[in-house]
Amino acid sequence: MEIIGKNFIGDRLSALGNINYRTFDPLKNIENKTCFVEATLEELEDAVTLADIAFPIYRETSGAQRASFLMAIADEILNLGEDLINIYCRETGLPRERAITERGRTIIQLQLFAKTIETEGWRKKINETAMPERTPLPKPSLIKTHIPLGPIAVFGASNFPLAYSTAGGDTASALAVGCPVIVKSHPMHSGTGAIVSAAIIKATQKTGMPNGVFSNLNSKSHELSHALVEHSKIKAVGFTGSYSGGTALQKTVFNRKEPIPFFAEMGSINPIAILPGAIKEKNNEIAHEIADSIALGAGQFCTQPGLLLTLDGAYTDHFIEELVNALKSLDLQCMIHNDLKKNYIQQSDKINSLKETIPIQDQEDQLEDNLVHPKLSMITGGQFIANPQYQEEVFGPFSLVVKCKNLKELEQVIYHLKGQLTGTIFAQPADYKITGPLIDAFKSRVGRFIFNGVPTGVEVTEAMTHGGPYPASSDSRFSAVGPESIYRWVRPITYQNWPNELLKKLID
Amino acid sequence: MEIIGKNFIGDRLSALGNINYRTFDPLKNIENKTCFVEATLEELEDAVTLADIAFPIYRETSGAQRASFLMAIADEILNLGEDLINIYCRETGLPRERAITERGRTIIQLQLFAKTIETEGWRKKINETAMPERTPLPKPSLIKTHIPLGPIAVFGASNFPLAYSTAGGDTASALAVGCPVIVKSHPMHSGTGAIVSAAIIKATQKTGMPNGVFSNLNSKSHELSHALVEHSKIKAVGFTGSYSGGTALQKTVFNRKEPIPFFAEMGSINPIAILPGAIKEKNNEIAHEIADSIALGAGQFCTQPGLLLTLDGAYTDHFIEELVNALKSLDLQCMIHNDLKKNYIQQSDKINSLKETIPIQDQEDQLEDNLVHPKLSMITGGQFIANPQYQEEVFGPFSLVVKCKNLKELEQVIYHLKGQLTGTIFAQPADYKITGPLIDAFKSRVGRFIFNGVPTGVEVTEAMTHGGPYPASSDSRFSAVGPESIYRWVRPITYQNWPNELLKKLID
Repeated sequence: MEIIGKNFIGDRLSALGNINYRTFDPLKNIENKTCFVEATLEELEDAVTLADIAFPIYRETSGAQRASFLMAIADEILNLGEDLINIYCRETGLPRERAITERGRTIIQLQLFAKTIETEGWRKKINETAMPERTPLPKPSLIKTHIPLGPIAVFGASNFPLAYSTAGGDTASALAVGCPVIVKSHPMHSGTGAIVSAAIIKATQKTGMPNGVFSNLNSKSHELSHALVEHSKIKAVGFTGSYSGGTALQKTVFNRKEPIPFFAEMGSINPIAILPGAIKEKNNEIAHEIADSIALGAGQFCTQPGLLLTLDGAYTDHFIEELVNALKSLDLQCMIHNDLKKNYIQQSDKINSLKETIPIQDQEDQLEDNLVHPKLSMITGGQFIANPQYQEEVFGPFSLVVKCKNLKELEQVIYHLKGQLTGTIFAQPADYKITGPLIDAFKSRVGRFIFNGVPTGVEVTEAMTHGGPYPASSDSRFSAVGPESIYRWVRPITYQNWPNELLKKLID
Repeated sequence: MEIIGKNFIGDRLSALGNINYRTFDPLKNIENKTCFVEATLEELEDAVTLADIAFPIYRETSGAQRASFLMAIADEILNLGEDLINIYCRETGLPRERAITERGRTIIQLQLFAKTIETEGWRKKINETAMPERTPLPKPSLIKTHIPLGPIAVFGASNFPLAYSTAGGDTASALAVGCPVIVKSHPMHSGTGAIVSAAIIKATQKTGMPNGVFSNLNSKSHELSHALVEHSKIKAVGFTGSYSGGTALQKTVFNRKEPIPFFAEMGSINPIAILPGAIKEKNNEIAHEIADSIALGAGQFCTQPGLLLTLDGAYTDHFIEELVNALKSLDLQCMIHNDLKKNYIQQSDKINSLKETIPIQDQEDQLEDNLVHPKLSMITGGQFIANPQYQEEVFGPFSLVVKCKNLKELEQVIYHLKGQLTGTIFAQPADYKITGPLIDAFKSRVGRFIFNGVPTGVEVTEAMTHGGPYPASSDSRFSAVGPESIYRWVRPITYQNWPNELLKKLID
């Protein structure tokens, strides 16, 4: 009998639609069994209405109550045990250890947000008492606090089925501050999404949260996504994914009668500049470190280093050689979906087909399986500056070496970059005196600026910025990672001149 | 000889264009003498280029240096003495006392922002030290801080020639954090704008700030405004004005290749709900307080109360009578410009021409002068809910009484409102038990929520929120007033693993 993957309209399972899809096992190169039923516009309406009804109730829960809810979600996810790990691996081809690590990160995030909001400090309350004697006019009492925006739409990432999808950072941060969440399930891992959704619903019931604080809608088509962000009762959107997907949704949001906060993390090519002293003194070491970062998780990280900025010279040539050797020595890895592999080949071929590109390492990838070779190509600084196509992200283990004729050109290359999640400088003390202009240039382009280290590996902590100037993120003033990410979903409100008796109702 | 009002391209005066306009003296009902030359696209380009060059230098100034700059602007504005007061009055018809009060407020704002940024606390620096021994992976050092976005375009408000225009809140908050500012001068008070610009330029020179941190462009046409917010080197926009002006600019910002933060305060109708106990016990007192607020400054405040929500009944009828008497007893006031008077008549006529409207107080306004009568009209709750045209702001001393048949309908009226800068409840202890649902409703619609007080009068303080859900502001997560308004113009950045020697260059 066929297993049907239904939608969660709050705690109710629903499958009214007649369009189905299956997820894909990239290791076995076959479709998985469960047949997911795409949510209809009617189901979307039901989910949003339920969220809208739940909102005024959920908004008034205490931080302690919502913290228990988040902790219960974490517990229920752990309770899924091997079922979760197995379905994760079956839907992504990622190794078991990665599934466990990512589950750990998801749990840590839920705990972190629980801790952030369990007391009311996150509201940054400012209390100014009245000054009735002030001249020329008395001053009324003013209390400023922060309240949630309303129901939030969340779009999970293909490359993080747990930590940036169903119960990932966007969902956890929105639930933390009192916003109901409607997740549009990622079609590459809707099975993982479904069992995590079941865990969230269980936690909702166990901790007595109002039905409708969480819904999960299946869809492979774009229509439902646009209808979701267009809905007047949706008050903000969290998206993690590609530039094309993010900007398409943003356009829909911009066309709303009431535009709403739209936070999209749309990836980047994460430039690394390697300065002369570093390339001379740490040549092999850096080559190996960068090779590992390029190919980590088949290059399917938004912080994957896709651009290596160097100065032309003998040490750089040796660095490139060593980098190629390092990349060749790595085990081939499986991409999350056959579509991603096709995409990788297409995008890297596109860069390599530009007439200036010199492919250095460009092995044919077998089309029968979903393993991919890391690829490396090369151009000059002038060529990079002249052609913005070189800035397009290749999602996968591809990197482009840019050979600049001097530091000035390297600086210009950085100024020509679009906004980036990260930027990195590798330097030795001998380089310190020449870093000034490059630091200035990078500062204006990145959300996280790294010294002597690779960009992959994002700490989930207060001091993290995961975002950056457009198009790395749609709004550089916020971060998608860390406790501060809750401020994407709240707004200030000021209460003026309220008597204590009624303030209890206003201030949580 | 004709006096020419030129543009400030940094410290350079320029008048390359051939389109001119004059400001208007609404008291004398004649044009003022100075002939302002509209900035050309070439001058716009020069101003933006200069700002872009100034930015990396200005960004690196210390908070103490920028604080001196802001204090110097305040000094230079005071040094303008009577010249400023006279031109202000000549361009607005507002009384001398108002000019002095608004100048005081402008000075207080500059001082407030100077104090906010004179030490580096505003950067909210978070310093996490490295944990090299952490397993399974070492933790790098992470320092998160905030840096300015870049050159900002500022559009001043017709109704605040000083406090929300050239050297007003948007300009002061942006300059405070290290963003150069290009002001598009408001065509109704370009003379006031010009002499304030001269004061800013003087302060720039006296405190050694880079040329280009401030420019001022004259224009009456929309073309220059759109070209300004479209320019790739402009990194955010601050706007105070009408819904139509704000949304038109927003559309242009949304169509940019690189969308940027756009903060617009677009006014609202500032609903006041008067509950049964209040209308019974404080009938006359509330009527007079509200009448004063409706007509204050000829009703030309964004927090002017344009909507009075009441319950049908004898006390409400008496309240309306008293309100009409109070409005009639007030001196007629002059609007800032003849165009605003025409607008006021047109907008109030539009509401009054809807077939459900009952005009209660609707005296003909003489067209020869620019004085206006306060106007009051009435409809039912059901009629308000049925027709969104009743939510359109009438800029001027107009207010609409909504008679609701019961509390439930009053609650529904609030839920039907668009986002508002403010909402108010007048209540007596007898009403407290029935406020719950109204509080819930207002909470979801307003940026500032007032008890027993009128919305006009915005405190410039940390606990203030001047903003609110769309369309009161374009982004409810920020405030246009108070020290926190600086966070519209900055973004977080994280420095990872930097050695102390280079951190000095990074962290101010």
